[in-house]
Amino acid sequence: MKKHYDVAIIGGGIIGMSIAYHVAKAGKQTLLLEANEIGKQTTSAAAGMLGAHAEGEGHEDIFFQVGRASQALYEKLKVDLQHESGIDIRKSVGGIMKVAFTEEEKRALCRMQHLSTFQWLEASCVKKRMPQIANDIMGAGLIEEDVHVEPYAVCRALWQAAVRYGADVKEFTPVIEVIRDKEAITVRTANGTFTCDDLTIASGVWSGRFFEELGLSYSLYPVKGECVSVWNSGPALAHTIYHDHCYIVQRDSGKLVIGATMKQNDWQAVPTLGGIEAVIQKASQLMPSIKEMQIDQCWAGLRPATSDRHPYIGRHPEDERILFATGHYRNGILLAPITGEIIRDLILGKPVQEEWLHAFRIGRKEALFI
Amino acid sequence: MKKHYDVAIIGGGIIGMSIAYHVAKAGKQTLLLEANEIGKQTTSAAAGMLGAHAEGEGHEDIFFQVGRASQALYEKLKVDLQHESGIDIRKSVGGIMKVAFTEEEKRALCRMQHLSTFQWLEASCVKKRMPQIANDIMGAGLIEEDVHVEPYAVCRALWQAAVRYGADVKEFTPVIEVIRDKEAITVRTANGTFTCDDLTIASGVWSGRFFEELGLSYSLYPVKGECVSVWNSGPALAHTIYHDHCYIVQRDSGKLVIGATMKQNDWQAVPTLGGIEAVIQKASQLMPSIKEMQIDQCWAGLRPATSDRHPYIGRHPEDERILFATGHYRNGILLAPITGEIIRDLILGKPVQEEWLHAFRIGRKEALFI
Amino acid sequence: MKKHYDVAIIGGGIIGMSIAYHVAKAGKQTLLLEANEIGKQTTSAAAGMLGAHAEGEGHEDIFFQVGRASQALYEKLKVDLQHESGIDIRKSVGGIMKVAFTEEEKRALCRMQHLSTFQWLEASCVKKRMPQIANDIMGAGLIEEDVHVEPYAVCRALWQAAVRYGADVKEFTPVIEVIRDKEAITVRTANGTFTCDDLTIASGVWSGRFFEELGLSYSLYPVKGECVSVWNSGPALAHTIYHDHCYIVQRDSGKLVIGATMKQNDWQAVPTLGGIEAVIQKASQLMPSIKEMQIDQCWAGLRPATSDRHPYIGRHPEDERILFATGHYRNGILLAPITGEIIRDLILGKPVQEEWLHAFRIGRKEALFI
Amino acid sequence: MKKHYDVAIIGGGIIGMSIAYHVAKAGKQTLLLEANEIGKQTTSAAAGMLGAHAEGEGHEDIFFQVGRASQALYEKLKVDLQHESGIDIRKSVGGIMKVAFTEEEKRALCRMQHLSTFQWLEASCVKKRMPQIANDIMGAGLIEEDVHVEPYAVCRALWQAAVRYGADVKEFTPVIEVIRDKEAITVRTANGTFTCDDLTIASGVWSGRFFEELGLSYSLYPVKGECVSVWNSGPALAHTIYHDHCYIVQRDSGKLVIGATMKQNDWQAVPTLGGIEAVIQKASQLMPSIKEMQIDQCWAGLRPATSDRHPYIGRHPEDERILFATGHYRNGILLAPITGEIIRDLILGKPVQEEWLHAFRIGRKEALFI
Repeated sequence: MKKHYDVAIIGGGIIGMSIAYHVAKAGKQTLLLEANEIGKQTTSAAAGMLGAHAEGEGHEDIFFQVGRASQALYEKLKVDLQHESGIDIRKSVGGIMKVAFTEEEKRALCRMQHLSTFQWLEASCVKKRMPQIANDIMGAGLIEEDVHVEPYAVCRALWQAAVRYGADVKEFTPVIEVIRDKEAITVRTANGTFTCDDLTIASGVWSGRFFEELGLSYSLYPVKGECVSVWNSGPALAHTIYHDHCYIVQRDSGKLVIGATMKQNDWQAVPTLGGIEAVIQKASQLMPSIKEMQIDQCWAGLRPATSDRHPYIGRHPEDERILFATGHYRNGILLAPITGEIIRDLILGKPVQEEWLHAFRIGRKEALFI
Repeated sequence: MKKHYDVAIIGGGIIGMSIAYHVAKAGKQTLLLEANEIGKQTTSAAAGMLGAHAEGEGHEDIFFQVGRASQALYEKLKVDLQHESGIDIRKSVGGIMKVAFTEEEKRALCRMQHLSTFQWLEASCVKKRMPQIANDIMGAGLIEEDVHVEPYAVCRALWQAAVRYGADVKEFTPVIEVIRDKEAITVRTANGTFTCDDLTIASGVWSGRFFEELGLSYSLYPVKGECVSVWNSGPALAHTIYHDHCYIVQRDSGKLVIGATMKQNDWQAVPTLGGIEAVIQKASQLMPSIKEMQIDQCWAGLRPATSDRHPYIGRHPEDERILFATGHYRNGILLAPITGEIIRDLILGKPVQEEWLHAFRIGRKEALFI
Repeated sequence: MKKHYDVAIIGGGIIGMSIAYHVAKAGKQTLLLEANEIGKQTTSAAAGMLGAHAEGEGHEDIFFQVGRASQALYEKLKVDLQHESGIDIRKSVGGIMKVAFTEEEKRALCRMQHLSTFQWLEASCVKKRMPQIANDIMGAGLIEEDVHVEPYAVCRALWQAAVRYGADVKEFTPVIEVIRDKEAITVRTANGTFTCDDLTIASGVWSGRFFEELGLSYSLYPVKGECVSVWNSGPALAHTIYHDHCYIVQRDSGKLVIGATMKQNDWQAVPTLGGIEAVIQKASQLMPSIKEMQIDQCWAGLRPATSDRHPYIGRHPEDERILFATGHYRNGILLAPITGEIIRDLILGKPVQEEWLHAFRIGRKEALFI
Repeated sequence: MKKHYDVAIIGGGIIGMSIAYHVAKAGKQTLLLEANEIGKQTTSAAAGMLGAHAEGEGHEDIFFQVGRASQALYEKLKVDLQHESGIDIRKSVGGIMKVAFTEEEKRALCRMQHLSTFQWLEASCVKKRMPQIANDIMGAGLIEEDVHVEPYAVCRALWQAAVRYGADVKEFTPVIEVIRDKEAITVRTANGTFTCDDLTIASGVWSGRFFEELGLSYSLYPVKGECVSVWNSGPALAHTIYHDHCYIVQRDSGKLVIGATMKQNDWQAVPTLGGIEAVIQKASQLMPSIKEMQIDQCWAGLRPATSDRHPYIGRHPEDERILFATGHYRNGILLAPITGEIIRDLILGKPVQEEWLHAFRIGRKEALFI
């Protein structure tokens, strides 16, 4: 009566859908449950930068390794998804230009100088490549491999492909209760009751609910980001412009995506007048001519944050049938492919890098928000 | 540390918000929790007919009594809300014209003929009042008191007014868990934990979750309705046209709202191509010239249905601190005022009509969906 | 073959539509030609303030007289249009609060003090009526009669009513050529050729074309205004807030409309990033809490300006079969009723105030833009 | 004072913009004037099929030759525009499947069988490639070279690239008057007066105005098309489905575009309820599962038609400084590249195929609409 699945996933953003795709492709009977519409919340709000360098800080740390590994996976994923779904994920070229306005910012950037993927450019050189950029920059670090994709397109492509591999995807299906018996895990929803062998929680910042049941309160909190897009009436940007958590991304539709504010603990996933003003001011500082461009739309999303800025990827410490894949903060788009592979490998019993699992383990104290 | 409220309400549609408004106005410290945005789901999808006669069947039954009582409350509510919120709920005049195409349909309608509010009109007379109507009608029953309002405007006005009376309204705040201790009820959300003396469940079709905890499965199911609106390029409709669950409603903006399909157990709250086709066909049958009008938009909503078509309004059978107000099916807009008053009176310990409470009691077998 | 009309009007904004309404209601065979969609350009972009005082400067001048006369006409128009079209034009109450931040601004405002419609309020008194207002105001002039309407609703209602009185309204019908023969005026469009006895030009800033044919170049230029709306999450504004061409208007839907920039000679009728930033900054200065509110949408419109800020209303100096009604600058919504009546009376041969015709006459030198 | 250009173009749809692009790239000082927004009318309404075979009838005629030549140009154009503008025109693969339901339809299609680009497939074979297709088809003709592009993306890319080559593009600039003196052509607009050596009229169905000045009335009329798009919840369509002027086109965003009605002489460029109903019925006949898909949006556009279904491309018969490029009917997207090249070559004095110029010459009697 109750349908049984090998794997059930709660959450239909890019993380949950990447897991559904990878697991279904590996031959598992897969179910994905989404409370609202697939990919319409944090995923759709993201700019889609694959910022392995841009977001990392240590550049020798685990995060950088994992980010680079996931970035590399996008190359094949793009081709596979085009074939499997007919959807183009719009992977760009050109990478990111991390701007410095001061000596201090330059020094901070140049800590990446030992990396072969990083190249410091003086202001005149930056201006030559991007005449639109502000005159008062000191220079910029160019990272050509930190390209971008269109997040909703990736999520939709993963969805179509997962369905093709047999996955059942249920939108508008909030989970009422998860019951863990010896034989199976039962997931009760308004729209039916299901059982599964493995259950993965991938509900972004709304995953907190499942941590609570573990006695792991304060594991996640939202950092709201507000964005605006414009129609680029000048030449296309050769590179994403980035400074101090603000970015201007060129879409291949001709639009520029500008983001984003950083509002801790704000659950109100809509753009405010003040937030949009702040984004415009910042963008105008980076690229003055942007003020003349036609506004397209405004939106907001909630990044799922942990205190150490690392995601949770791994098994429940007390019940290994439960897995978590959340807390990706500003890096959900970047890390979606590797997260899908890690969860798949855990479920299949294949080896996964121990140090990654350690860094992203559930229940680590440094991640808690107090 | 945890903030305490006299009353907490889960669900920010028109029902939950009417309760918040009435309870806060009565001086209670009130909290309303909404998982997404206030009034953006079933409430926004409704046409807003106050169809006490249109929807009733027996016309001597409890439902008709309650519907008429709630309809009457709208008169004062309109004035109060304009004053308290600055929002006009757009209460129309003209009422509803229930069309008959056959003798059988005429007979069915004329069962209302003993009511002073009902008036049978022959086809020629209907055509005189509404030249747009189809030529092949046999006649229609006019019910002038079954007017309409704009549901989102009502909900927004209740919201602004409730806040003015001190209510706390939290959007984007899904409930994780409800814990019932002796001293208090604790409501855990990602966005904070709260305690309250009384808790009301008013989450429409998504209330099922809380019935489940009572062992009351199958209490509610969705009946999806798909709608379309057009710009009326002809004279305004003097009355709502209604036939066989389909209606054409004139807004005072100049738009016509047309609805709605009836899809049982469909949780997908978006309009499909086939659903919109069906709505267009039905509307064209009632009013042929509508085919020439400019389409405005399409949408869908989920009516929360019970098997006996009556709502659940009342106390939890085993824990009287918990109240329910859901299952309003096609009548949520109509019944919002009376539902707010009943729940308020129950909480305040004031008398409520016993037979109403009996008809709408939680756990009645005839409501279950099997 | 060519259809003949008593009166043809070119331009389907609120001015042209008011003329069509008044002329058709007076029994004339009327044709209105609109190149795009009715009421979707400058009319839709306007906030709809009936600012007879707010916009006037001399307050003893012709403009003030005409503005007050037109404002008064709205009372009856609202009732008539509700009846004739079923559309509510959403006429507000409360009027306008003209804020002063400095002694100088106060002095400028208090030049209106001799008017019975003007009332100076000290800051504390303003704050009592509008707690949302900025703390650093010095006071404000309250003009209760300068209320507002919803411009598109007015235009749509005039349209529906004009059609009811027999007018032919053709959207998507740009005029190719106007030929003036002795017997008749011929208007050639892609969508048919028509003749008429009287032709009125009411195409807003795009009317320039017809002035050119008169050798009257530089008669009109655009002043672009950019606007943004938000959802008011606080109490409704009791009065429109106004300062230095910026306003915050409360709609009875619960939205606030904020405007507007003043960009001379900018024909690009879309909102820019920089324009929206300027509007947000100004609004935040007047009402700091507005920064927390959810953004709804952004738009822009082109005000048709003359150098003396007065409209052109009257006959062609050399061919009295041609009439003009344009150049209403910031006052098109306010002046639509009186403009409709003046043009109607000119066509019917009824008397019109001589000094008004003189002030608004075609070809006056002080209106030219050089 | 008046700025002079080598070439001015009136009309900023895909045809005018292709001309601007080609002419500016050839080194000419170029001006493009658009009355509203670039590419937002007929261009945006088109599905973008490059249907050289699909639309041709004779398949040996001039139209087929020109269509095939233009189709071939898209290959290089795609690469050039990506480089010049950063915009991807979204050229698809897969081509078109022309469905036959009857023997007669099969025979009609198989008249193309001598073409190496055409391949007849029996029903079973079609179903294997496209399981979504209706069961009652008899078979289909596959034309792999009739792929599609995204029309607005092409137009936007041409725009950005033209600007890069020095073209001036002015939106919101309707032309008031064209004056032809011996020395130069003067174009008067509200937004400035310009002179040019060559003037090209490329205003789609609104070009009629300029034919009128030539005494060439009835040269063009609109054929309105209404469309709807849905989100494809099944596998991507491998090929466009086409039957009887109706098509279902797969976008690489995951959407399906469905069109289109054929309403002669309807200038009302908005979708009606009846038009959308007709499109849904037709699409459901071709692909039954489409009825279950989520509706995305509805729109309409006006195809500029001539009686012989061929465009006007060439010089004014009496004044060779005036050129025309309009009347592309259902084939504007297909023919944009070749039209741009022909006009460029005429202006540069380079040779153009004589028979093409003959077929598309201005003033030919067979094109007139009577």
